[in-house]
Amino acid sequence: MTHFPQTPANSVKRVPKRAAYDHETIYAIVDSAYICHVGLVQDGRPFVIPTIHARDGDTLLLHGASTSRLMRHAAAGHELCLTVTHLDGLVLARSVFNHSMNYRSAVLFGRGHLIEEPAAKMAALERFTEKLIPGRWAEVRQPNETEMKATYIVAIPIETASAKVRVGPPNDEEEDLDWPVWAGVLPITPQFGAPISAPDATAEYPLPSLSRPIRPRGNWRVR
Amino acid sequence: MTHFPQTPANSVKRVPKRAAYDHETIYAIVDSAYICHVGLVQDGRPFVIPTIHARDGDTLLLHGASTSRLMRHAAAGHELCLTVTHLDGLVLARSVFNHSMNYRSAVLFGRGHLIEEPAAKMAALERFTEKLIPGRWAEVRQPNETEMKATYIVAIPIETASAKVRVGPPNDEEEDLDWPVWAGVLPITPQFGAPISAPDATAEYPLPSLSRPIRPRGNWRVR
Repeated sequence: MTHFPQTPANSVKRVPKRAAYDHETIYAIVDSAYICHVGLVQDGRPFVIPTIHARDGDTLLLHGASTSRLMRHAAAGHELCLTVTHLDGLVLARSVFNHSMNYRSAVLFGRGHLIEEPAAKMAALERFTEKLIPGRWAEVRQPNETEMKATYIVAIPIETASAKVRVGPPNDEEEDLDWPVWAGVLPITPQFGAPISAPDATAEYPLPSLSRPIRPRGNWRVR
Repeated sequence: MTHFPQTPANSVKRVPKRAAYDHETIYAIVDSAYICHVGLVQDGRPFVIPTIHARDGDTLLLHGASTSRLMRHAAAGHELCLTVTHLDGLVLARSVFNHSMNYRSAVLFGRGHLIEEPAAKMAALERFTEKLIPGRWAEVRQPNETEMKATYIVAIPIETASAKVRVGPPNDEEEDLDWPVWAGVLPITPQFGAPISAPDATAEYPLPSLSRPIRPRGNWRVR
């Protein structure tokens, strides 16, 4: 199992037993999320912007309009922090103090650079499209030159990272166990609702398959 | 309708028609989320940490262990960026380029200070507990002195903020409308699963009511 180095930046200090530094745990969290929150520093101030991400081995990928502030900042090689969080449940304890949440979060650090080589750029776009719906790339119109020019792809080699995970029931104090209230976990899961067809559809086509859990496809290989 | 002032920090530059600066839109996004992502700058580097939040009028509240790095940094009055995001759906277009997501996000800026006055601190804790499950505060054991000491409550008056919202179907190019593929929106909604009772339960108690949508209670007033 490969681990990220522990540095002051990525070391989990609060409840360190919930921390993980291995690639497997961290990448499972990253790959099963559609979006991440990107943190950056501009003029000394923090900014946090949600965006879609993809992963290629030990590199995170972002994409967006070439005019976007986030993409320009990321492409310029400034330090970035990318955080992915799954909220898995509310943890209801007998005491106010022991209420909590079940979650899986990953915090990754790195600096980005622009991917400009056309084939690499196209492969990255395929990754993003396939992440939404596996098989989608082959079914839709490919990007043309104008669209490619309007899109930035930024690659961020992951310098270090950590995960923090809470699972399981509330941790109540022994002396609270008889408190007359229900205690336990209310699980939370994102679910797909019924697909809504585009109002400008000109014919009927088969719906994308939703027979899978709502979880984007992981670190697949570009064909 | 009250609006936050537009500054360079909070102005939405990409697709400004999706932006909103009014309290109503922004607070609806903030209040309907269990967690936010807090951005901060330490030693010039960005950090993004997920945490639970609550709101009291134009003030955001964070809480956590008094030993937590996030809480100490927030309490020290450094600039913070708090971002709340709801992913509402995948937007599947006929072209790769026009794929998108439906979302509601809010980005808020401010500086925190510690709430130390016992009654105000207790009222804030009530806010957090009631946000998880309305009615919970009255049913569970109240915080004792040791627990109060171990907890930091940080109040962050909101200096400025913005929201960005995408709703609706894909925006395909006219010439792509006959492309032979399904296009539309796959809505995503978080759902509660069946409650899991604590294994150390000593008696049976009524389950918390889940007859409501999964949406924390908004900006309610402390009794």
